Amino acid sequence: MDINDKDKVNEKYFSNLSSRERAIFEGAISMGALFHQFIGTPVSLKSADSLQKAIEESIKLQPGVKKIKVRINPHILAELDTEFEYTSLTGDMLDVELHCDFKKTRAVIRMNFIPDLNYPLMYVESIKEE
Amino acid sequence: MDINDKDKVNEKYFSNLSSRERAIFEGAISMGALFHQFIGTPVSLKSADSLQKAIEESIKLQPGVKKIKVRINPHILAELDTEFEYTSLTGDMLDVELHCDFKKTRAVIRMNFIPDLNYPLMYVESIKEE
Amino acid sequence: MDINDKDKVNEKYFSNLSSRERAIFEGAISMGALFHQFIGTPVSLKSADSLQKAIEESIKLQPGVKKIKVRINPHILAELDTEFEYTSLTGDMLDVELHCDFKKTRAVIRMNFIPDLNYPLMYVESIKEE
Amino acid sequence: MDINDKDKVNEKYFSNLSSRERAIFEGAISMGALFHQFIGTPVSLKSADSLQKAIEESIKLQPGVKKIKVRINPHILAELDTEFEYTSLTGDMLDVELHCDFKKTRAVIRMNFIPDLNYPLMYVESIKEE
Repeated sequence: MDINDKDKVNEKYFSNLSSRERAIFEGAISMGALFHQFIGTPVSLKSADSLQKAIEESIKLQPGVKKIKVRINPHILAELDTEFEYTSLTGDMLDVELHCDFKKTRAVIRMNFIPDLNYPLMYVESIKEE
Repeated sequence: MDINDKDKVNEKYFSNLSSRERAIFEGAISMGALFHQFIGTPVSLKSADSLQKAIEESIKLQPGVKKIKVRINPHILAELDTEFEYTSLTGDMLDVELHCDFKKTRAVIRMNFIPDLNYPLMYVESIKEE
Repeated sequence: MDINDKDKVNEKYFSNLSSRERAIFEGAISMGALFHQFIGTPVSLKSADSLQKAIEESIKLQPGVKKIKVRINPHILAELDTEFEYTSLTGDMLDVELHCDFKKTRAVIRMNFIPDLNYPLMYVESIKEE
Repeated sequence: MDINDKDKVNEKYFSNLSSRERAIFEGAISMGALFHQFIGTPVSLKSADSLQKAIEESIKLQPGVKKIKVRINPHILAELDTEFEYTSLTGDMLDVELHCDFKKTRAVIRMNFIPDLNYPLMYVESIKEE
């Protein structure tokens, strides 16, 4: 069996999931991947654009990911750049919106810092049949 | 709102997911996290036990993860240790079984190298109401 | 040429470095590796011991590393565990002492949070012919 | 003391190193950092440019790094893209040349895959007073 023969792989390994569940599954893997791959990367106001673009282009390669928007909070960077010249990327700086499709279902997975929780939360912002 | 006040967080951010979907969501995040946090770690036959244990204990902290078993393939390590004394952890070496619960649903997420696909696949091995 | 035939590799690629310089070179690579491999790992007071041990055993595999002591600050973990149940490993929590030998020279590389600098600094704590 | 008051930091923490040793120390940290931060990133022929640029811009923020050239081997990507659509970045694909200065000394640190060793080696390609 070929990993790129998606019909056969789906039938053998994913027949226990609905389209909604599969879109959530693949999108969530990619969000966990994004966080743990890039947290710790040196970043400054000046380098943020290239890092955002590289995160977007790499995560867009993952299964089902159709669209992704990554924003590194420039206000946090501006403060940290002043104190230390640059800093390490943390979850608090990230706002990510990731669209993951399976068949006709699109799950929009979001991670952003929720001031009310004082925490960068990952959640499903919306999910629907298209 | 407190991030640890789970009822309020669930109501506000996760009311669009069923218990099955939520168990899949959290388990998939943790599997993506595991892969991208630890891939690249120097490893040998001698150090594999401590790395397996640290992966298990760190990923068990993630939301919903109740149980996790990580195995680094000793046969691959034995071959690579002979050639290079040690190697970098890759997906091909990993076999992970992760149990993620939400309310009465348990999703068992698996990652292992599938020889037939020549690929380390992440999938939902089983999911059920308990 | 075999990567484990150290005399030949040294002669071809490292003849421009003194023993002091080589011990510093290898030790510094390992300290940079440690930081960027493990930053972001989920950690709590309960899991800190297994993570410390896995970091020590994996980094001890790197060229020249003879001894390493990793300590994750329990006071920071205690505070963060109370607020969020667990946290992500950051440089501020780490105190690492790494002994890297080349021939008769031992370089002791240190990383720890320096309150006076408000920064986790990497530096050569001592270096001498043994 | 301020981390950006480089004269005071140098005097207190780095007075035991020559300019050559300091250039080697900082360059080696950055090379170890690069490897362990970015190994495992999803990459394809199409995304390689943005990843190369983000690696360059982030590592250029590290102390002493004045110039850096990162190349991800397109031949390896071309082969892997055919088989799996994309792959995970490994050390074998990387060719990095990093110029690290301290005072009048420049160390050129290199990492590239050495076919004769079957290994991606980090070494000091050249070092001199300018």
